[in-house]
Amino acid sequence: MALEQSLAALSLATVSSENAIPTKTLVFKPKTAKTATPVPVVVFALQSTQTPSPVIAKAAGVKEPRLARDDLVQEFFTTSTKEVSLANLHKDLAGKIKILIDENISKADENTVLELSTESSKASLSARNVNAYLESTGIEVIPVDFTVEATVPTPAPVDKSKKLALKKEKDAAKLEDAKLVGITVDKTKDFSSWYSQIVVKSELLDYYDVSGCYILRPNSYAVWEEIQDWFNARIKKMGVKNCYFPMFVSSRVLEKEKDHIEGFAPEVAWVTRAGSSDLEEPVAIRPTSETVMYPYYAKWIRSHRDLPLKLHQWNSVVRWEFKHPQPFLRTREFLWQEGHTVHLTREAAEEEVSQILDLYAGIYEELLAVPVVKGKKTENEKFAGGDYTTTVEGFIAATGRGIQGATSHHLGTNFSKMFDISVENPEGSDKPRILTHQNSWGLSTRVIGVMVMTHSDNKGLVLPPRVAQNQVVVVPVGITAKTTDAERKEINDGAAEIEKRLKDAEVRAFGDYRANYTPGWKYAEWELKGVPLRIEFGPKDLQNGQAVAVRRDDNSKYTVKLSELETRIPEILQEMQVGLLEKARKDFDSHRVVVDEWKDFVPTLNAKNVILSPWCGDGDCEDDIKDSSAKKDDGEDEEVDEKAPSMGAKSLCIPFEQPTLKSGQKCVKCDRAAQVYCMFGRSY
Amino acid sequence: MALEQSLAALSLATVSSENAIPTKTLVFKPKTAKTATPVPVVVFALQSTQTPSPVIAKAAGVKEPRLARDDLVQEFFTTSTKEVSLANLHKDLAGKIKILIDENISKADENTVLELSTESSKASLSARNVNAYLESTGIEVIPVDFTVEATVPTPAPVDKSKKLALKKEKDAAKLEDAKLVGITVDKTKDFSSWYSQIVVKSELLDYYDVSGCYILRPNSYAVWEEIQDWFNARIKKMGVKNCYFPMFVSSRVLEKEKDHIEGFAPEVAWVTRAGSSDLEEPVAIRPTSETVMYPYYAKWIRSHRDLPLKLHQWNSVVRWEFKHPQPFLRTREFLWQEGHTVHLTREAAEEEVSQILDLYAGIYEELLAVPVVKGKKTENEKFAGGDYTTTVEGFIAATGRGIQGATSHHLGTNFSKMFDISVENPEGSDKPRILTHQNSWGLSTRVIGVMVMTHSDNKGLVLPPRVAQNQVVVVPVGITAKTTDAERKEINDGAAEIEKRLKDAEVRAFGDYRANYTPGWKYAEWELKGVPLRIEFGPKDLQNGQAVAVRRDDNSKYTVKLSELETRIPEILQEMQVGLLEKARKDFDSHRVVVDEWKDFVPTLNAKNVILSPWCGDGDCEDDIKDSSAKKDDGEDEEVDEKAPSMGAKSLCIPFEQPTLKSGQKCVKCDRAAQVYCMFGRSY
Repeated sequence: MALEQSLAALSLATVSSENAIPTKTLVFKPKTAKTATPVPVVVFALQSTQTPSPVIAKAAGVKEPRLARDDLVQEFFTTSTKEVSLANLHKDLAGKIKILIDENISKADENTVLELSTESSKASLSARNVNAYLESTGIEVIPVDFTVEATVPTPAPVDKSKKLALKKEKDAAKLEDAKLVGITVDKTKDFSSWYSQIVVKSELLDYYDVSGCYILRPNSYAVWEEIQDWFNARIKKMGVKNCYFPMFVSSRVLEKEKDHIEGFAPEVAWVTRAGSSDLEEPVAIRPTSETVMYPYYAKWIRSHRDLPLKLHQWNSVVRWEFKHPQPFLRTREFLWQEGHTVHLTREAAEEEVSQILDLYAGIYEELLAVPVVKGKKTENEKFAGGDYTTTVEGFIAATGRGIQGATSHHLGTNFSKMFDISVENPEGSDKPRILTHQNSWGLSTRVIGVMVMTHSDNKGLVLPPRVAQNQVVVVPVGITAKTTDAERKEINDGAAEIEKRLKDAEVRAFGDYRANYTPGWKYAEWELKGVPLRIEFGPKDLQNGQAVAVRRDDNSKYTVKLSELETRIPEILQEMQVGLLEKARKDFDSHRVVVDEWKDFVPTLNAKNVILSPWCGDGDCEDDIKDSSAKKDDGEDEEVDEKAPSMGAKSLCIPFEQPTLKSGQKCVKCDRAAQVYCMFGRSY
Repeated sequence: MALEQSLAALSLATVSSENAIPTKTLVFKPKTAKTATPVPVVVFALQSTQTPSPVIAKAAGVKEPRLARDDLVQEFFTTSTKEVSLANLHKDLAGKIKILIDENISKADENTVLELSTESSKASLSARNVNAYLESTGIEVIPVDFTVEATVPTPAPVDKSKKLALKKEKDAAKLEDAKLVGITVDKTKDFSSWYSQIVVKSELLDYYDVSGCYILRPNSYAVWEEIQDWFNARIKKMGVKNCYFPMFVSSRVLEKEKDHIEGFAPEVAWVTRAGSSDLEEPVAIRPTSETVMYPYYAKWIRSHRDLPLKLHQWNSVVRWEFKHPQPFLRTREFLWQEGHTVHLTREAAEEEVSQILDLYAGIYEELLAVPVVKGKKTENEKFAGGDYTTTVEGFIAATGRGIQGATSHHLGTNFSKMFDISVENPEGSDKPRILTHQNSWGLSTRVIGVMVMTHSDNKGLVLPPRVAQNQVVVVPVGITAKTTDAERKEINDGAAEIEKRLKDAEVRAFGDYRANYTPGWKYAEWELKGVPLRIEFGPKDLQNGQAVAVRRDDNSKYTVKLSELETRIPEILQEMQVGLLEKARKDFDSHRVVVDEWKDFVPTLNAKNVILSPWCGDGDCEDDIKDSSAKKDDGEDEEVDEKAPSMGAKSLCIPFEQPTLKSGQKCVKCDRAAQVYCMFGRSY
């Protein structure tokens, strides 16, 4: 059905035919320089035609084509690998993709009818129409005789078996009872596809026309607004003031602090043209604002009376990463907050660093119900140009990987030296001026990704009540063909009354009174979209003066007296909020394992844990741990992303809360004495 | 004093000398293509040396150098024309400016001592030090023998007299009793310099390293936050939801709606490079988001049940204008809100257009105390690609110019046709799909500029209490050398108690207890920064259980019993809020003049009015009115900005509230019958 409609939208008439020949549509990603946008190759062939990679490579003039992952297919065709078909090939893709067409199709006679199929639906249409349509799109279509396979070297059989194994794995991840509108893959078996589906289908975000950028839809932006309100209230009490600095930076200013810019330079986006005129001097889009703001701090701060200066902004920054983008976690433009403060003394600055870190932990734990470990980054991992970096580190149980949550940096006097942010010496203007002590701290929309990965499940999104745009959906139930109009009205009115009372009690409630959907359909929809609590109200409830509340996270049911609605519902929401955090904390705690001996390190890591190990504190040893814990290339068919699980364990932080270090304890990796316990893990 | 300190900061030691030779520092702006960043020419010469423009032009290799305006000087030297000196020439300006140095200075002997002076201060230093310093900056320094004047044609004497006249005018604008930290020019005599000073000295914003961009400091950003809170609360009640779309747009998408993009194309900023790699396809930074959002609307809206869709975002947009930038009013990046909504019926869409316009009027009148006239734009002036545009129009009494406040557009089905934002026909899927009806509406930080221009005065900023970051400053007064420690403590404690009580009553109050400043100094500082109400508390007040409140706008004084603090202070703030609006409304009302005959049109316009005239409704006639009301070039010496007062009267809007049109009334300009009264004016 779905496919037929999509084809109809392209004015492609389907036909009924018992002789339709099955076809397949496959998308391949060639090996591409990291800096280049890939040009996917779509293979449209008879089901029975074998389409080996080397033939595809030769015909399309590309290197090492591999079956594309869901992300890429989503990006280009706005659908999943399993649902891609002719219906997704339209003229907007001209110049962006290539199509290899089986000569059995391109040269098919007038009467040939083809059967198009996706995992969920089928449709038949004439080969003539297909060929005419493809031509009309303007996409480069290359006819291929796949039977010439013999002329290129046959790939080693091991490749084929691996591909098969991978396919089996993917198939196994398919959810048994999945409905198409819902999530169709299992979180525990194919986390990456599951995540791609969750964020889109729950309407948190949508993929966007510019690669690496995503649309934050109201369901996720509302989470961000909750965070903004909570954080704003607290930092304003600390005397922090909001402001807005321009997004553009001149190259001169950007490059002033060498150490600092080194880390960002390859990712800086440059505006070089306005209208049709080239700018005399290109301007950068801020990747962060230290060098944007500090020249003005130098100008504004004249005396110790101007201190502390605590400015803060909510804005977006751009880091044009060429790595594989990932919704919320790695995006080219992202929203964040950045605080930049200046203090007279190091003590005052350091106190603030930890106050802010506590607020970051609060955002994760109190709002998003995500547990974090507070600690300090190693010298290797700290913010370039700063004195030290504190961090809250999270954990994604499903993949066993750590994830940096947010960082609060003490910059020392490094930047104030560079930018001359100094005040007059109280001992006299002939004495050297006193350099100020600075901090910077930031938290981004990445937090939403961590929240999604932590709580959500195979039914869809799970949102902690405190950040949910809609906390409660009220659904009238038990209305059947036999229900009288009067009864129906009573039930609907009762549900509407519940909605109204909850709203008056400042619960974010709404009712779903659509007559043409069954309660079951509604349950599935709001479960997918992550509404924390469902309230069912039917004839029995009407009779008993009650309603039934069902929690999204664990399906637990509560019978609530209508007289207690305003107190019980907020209580249940609060119980859910606490329950989510407790569950996630248990997961994190049980997967944060103390490992004293190197022999246990990699096995523990491979069992999806992060590790607390005694460590000597040496940067080279840290690198050695990373290298030695990397999986060797296992010949996986898909392109391996730099951040994929094959990588080694990074130091995540030196947790403030330390296991007791035994006297004489050696470093987990080298022969030196251990200085601290450090948390290591594969990470995002 | 100030100059000496600035020089000291550059390690330039001043000397005392009675034989110091007076010098002058002048900044010239050469004629530059609109698309290019100007390279100012600084002339540093003996006071006695004549420095004619043609000599400067020849020596610096530039065209038509003219004395630079305050804006340009501010931009490059972060000070005013009158305060610029050697102390503002530093190495960051290398490559950005040129210096012409009088050979009398560059070739001066070892014993020569120069006197540097600005309007406010003087300092002397050795010519040797000056020359060495200038060399050290790396700025291009060109020695010039200004006595060669004879070799270039002498400018016509008429120019000189005009320059003199202009100088006289500028001098006359100087405030008699101005303190240097405060505003030094008269709002009524040199509005443009006054505005430049107000926005910077009151710490609303600061000039920025990238031309046309400004830093919004907490004093202005707080106004924006008040507007955000107020507007968010109201649009959310209307069912509008916040979201965030990426700042980047692909060229394909940007250019989809031709009519629409035509207006923006010359101002679009393009990112063409990331790190050191050129992008395969440049991406634009959004100038507005219609074409960014609507392709996704087409995807999301499948059925009439998905309607209305009401999305909204707070973001920044970039329009790389090459016209003269102006703080808040014309900036290359600016903050705004943009709402984009989709409706099933035209009626629903139109109703929203006017609801939003009412909210815009509310922001101006209720929050910013700025009166506006609501109306509809003419066809010539409406939003390109839309059906019609409604607007709130403001008025700057000091210049007699109108200013567009914010616009709410009904787009009709123009965009939904282009992007296929349609829903299934309820009469059957074989019937044509129904196109949706769309609106877009936006208001920007320009509102802050309008507010500043309307209320502020020669003492500095005047902020309406509702949007002031700080509403009340408490100042202890009457402390003299004779005051005992006990009395001093009682006064300070009393003031602190007032501060605390006001804060508890949710008045945004703070106290200024600095011991080393006089009350007078404090008054001036907080008047400059626009704090609406000052509370003075001294010995007499202590005795009488009272405090004295002084309004920022009209200096009116209130004696307030301490027992009534929590009720009286909010009342006084509210009176001030109302008073500001009333005063501004009187100004607008008395300068909105009905003119039926063309002969009165230009004289009325020149008397700093906007005009209501009967109009035929024809676009060509509208153009004719504009052309015929433009001042002819009066040979002013400074470069004339396209938007400067010499321009003609544009149609501002067709006000909803119309004077009665007499039967048989003709158009003010042509012979056709008048259709409506239209508001015309010179405008920003």
